[in-house]
Amino acid sequence: MIRRGLVDDSIGLKYGAGGRAMRALIERVCLAGIGAAPVDGIGLAAMDDGAAIRVGDQWLVITTDSHVVHPLEFPGGDIGRLAISGTVNDLAVMGATEPLALTCAVILEEGFSRASLEQVYVSIRRACEEAGTTIVTGDTKVMGRGEIDGLVLNTTGVALCKRVIPDAGLEPGDLLIVTGTIGDHGMAIMAARHKLALEGDLRSDVAPINGLIRVALAAGGLDLVAMKDPTRGGVSSALHEMAEKGGVGIIVDEMQVPVRQQVRAACDLLGIDPLAVANEGKALIGVRPDAADRVLTALRRHPLGAEAAVIGRCIDQHAGAVMLDTGFGRRMLAEPEGELLPRIC
Amino acid sequence: MIRRGLVDDSIGLKYGAGGRAMRALIERVCLAGIGAAPVDGIGLAAMDDGAAIRVGDQWLVITTDSHVVHPLEFPGGDIGRLAISGTVNDLAVMGATEPLALTCAVILEEGFSRASLEQVYVSIRRACEEAGTTIVTGDTKVMGRGEIDGLVLNTTGVALCKRVIPDAGLEPGDLLIVTGTIGDHGMAIMAARHKLALEGDLRSDVAPINGLIRVALAAGGLDLVAMKDPTRGGVSSALHEMAEKGGVGIIVDEMQVPVRQQVRAACDLLGIDPLAVANEGKALIGVRPDAADRVLTALRRHPLGAEAAVIGRCIDQHAGAVMLDTGFGRRMLAEPEGELLPRIC
Repeated sequence: MIRRGLVDDSIGLKYGAGGRAMRALIERVCLAGIGAAPVDGIGLAAMDDGAAIRVGDQWLVITTDSHVVHPLEFPGGDIGRLAISGTVNDLAVMGATEPLALTCAVILEEGFSRASLEQVYVSIRRACEEAGTTIVTGDTKVMGRGEIDGLVLNTTGVALCKRVIPDAGLEPGDLLIVTGTIGDHGMAIMAARHKLALEGDLRSDVAPINGLIRVALAAGGLDLVAMKDPTRGGVSSALHEMAEKGGVGIIVDEMQVPVRQQVRAACDLLGIDPLAVANEGKALIGVRPDAADRVLTALRRHPLGAEAAVIGRCIDQHAGAVMLDTGFGRRMLAEPEGELLPRIC
Repeated sequence: MIRRGLVDDSIGLKYGAGGRAMRALIERVCLAGIGAAPVDGIGLAAMDDGAAIRVGDQWLVITTDSHVVHPLEFPGGDIGRLAISGTVNDLAVMGATEPLALTCAVILEEGFSRASLEQVYVSIRRACEEAGTTIVTGDTKVMGRGEIDGLVLNTTGVALCKRVIPDAGLEPGDLLIVTGTIGDHGMAIMAARHKLALEGDLRSDVAPINGLIRVALAAGGLDLVAMKDPTRGGVSSALHEMAEKGGVGIIVDEMQVPVRQQVRAACDLLGIDPLAVANEGKALIGVRPDAADRVLTALRRHPLGAEAAVIGRCIDQHAGAVMLDTGFGRRMLAEPEGELLPRIC
């Protein structure tokens, strides 16, 4: 494991932003405190999108996320849709595309409007319907005025599957597919937050993609070897993690990365690399080279995968590094410290 | 189902306090929004301590809780111990005393001290060891200064079991056992919060009690018919819920309710009924009358059950009501609107 930096004495915003700083915090504080407790399967030490526990001849996959997005509503979605999609997608990229059930715990600020809360629950229901799952249990807490900013959700999901797809499964020669355009979620939040008068329509891609992943798994079979959803820290952060865990180098072909025109324009204006911007309805899929065409074809037939593309390949040098082939040359892509904005999800 | 009051347009503190108001919020907003989605087992509509889903010939029990206790450390425990105990105990009172795994999601305020966070994780580890379980996955978010008060945890637990014990299983004639003294947690928090100079040592009872429940289940077998942990809203709130769901009346013999001397003194001083004060290491167990002695004997042999007592019985009148036999007469015990203090757990 690559040795990360120390953790500051005081936890700053970057430690919750999905990148290098957050991973250091988890390794040095959370894991160090809890200890490497044994579990028959994939546990916390794997730092994957979730855990997997042996139950008979199946795997029970479990994942949890708190959602602190600000604002609660944004173009393309809201915190309810985000919570359900985030949890369903974390299960899906572990190979568990049929969520058995979700839990939903809500923390409210005193004085929060009942009407807004009702709207969040309607949004939760719709996203559950899209994903083919349901909330089976929950929890409700209220904190005083000024003790929490509005509303925070936690969702946990469980699913059974026969085969777990780790994020660590890449080998030299494997190809990397992204299931669609990148940067849509992060730029939509940024525009909503700062009321940026950006040209065009910036909309979050937030959606449950377990149906899309199911199609990829059916097409790829055992040749689909690694998956991850590029949320906080974007494609760059996710690829760095996959490269490090798989012990490979990854070369990204920048010209092949699908980016919507309006996202590209906003990123250019603000000097941001779309590769470092969060997504909430996309997956990175690692496949053996022979399987790339059939997985890509299957993805593109699905409404959520029409713009899927092969964007990179794995090499046996520079283990843990991600390099960008710009069309004019190659340069190392630094791992983001974290997401550019706090409270993106 | 008894028709509860309407929910205010603005969510006040009482809606997170575990009593009548919170149940109204869950029924009228959360459940109404999500809809009665079908699940093969016990789902959200049952409003039990968790949900249970059929998996082969077993039940997968799942429960979730957010923890917002203030202060983070208090006599007898801290938020880490509270989170693990609360989740393990919710599983245990459903009959699932062998937790497969827990998840732990943390939300931090920018500037939170690393040393305090490390202490919370040590406490989490110790409580997991006591309960015989482990954290398998987590999530980390950071909110800005003033956007959240310090630290909030969410824990979700999963367990497999052969038989689910509902909180709705009471019938006329059944007896109710409490596994030990009541009111310890709530009064310890109150004293810590308000720096009350109360006589004696007020300490929270926070502990994982899955080992204790295991002993009760082994002794009671099929004659152990209902369980609930009396957390927010105390024994009173839990008994009201059990009475309503079981369609029975419950008579509580006040003289038999175990209350520590210092808790009794503090309650008297403040004019609080210990029956309405939160517990974090106790269970209410409903048994067929013939089984009461053997369950009680088994509980009392366990270090956490030494003060277990039969405190009530179920009758076929006054369905949903709880009556207090004071030794001088009977009176109706009103269901608390909620816990007396916010952020008790």
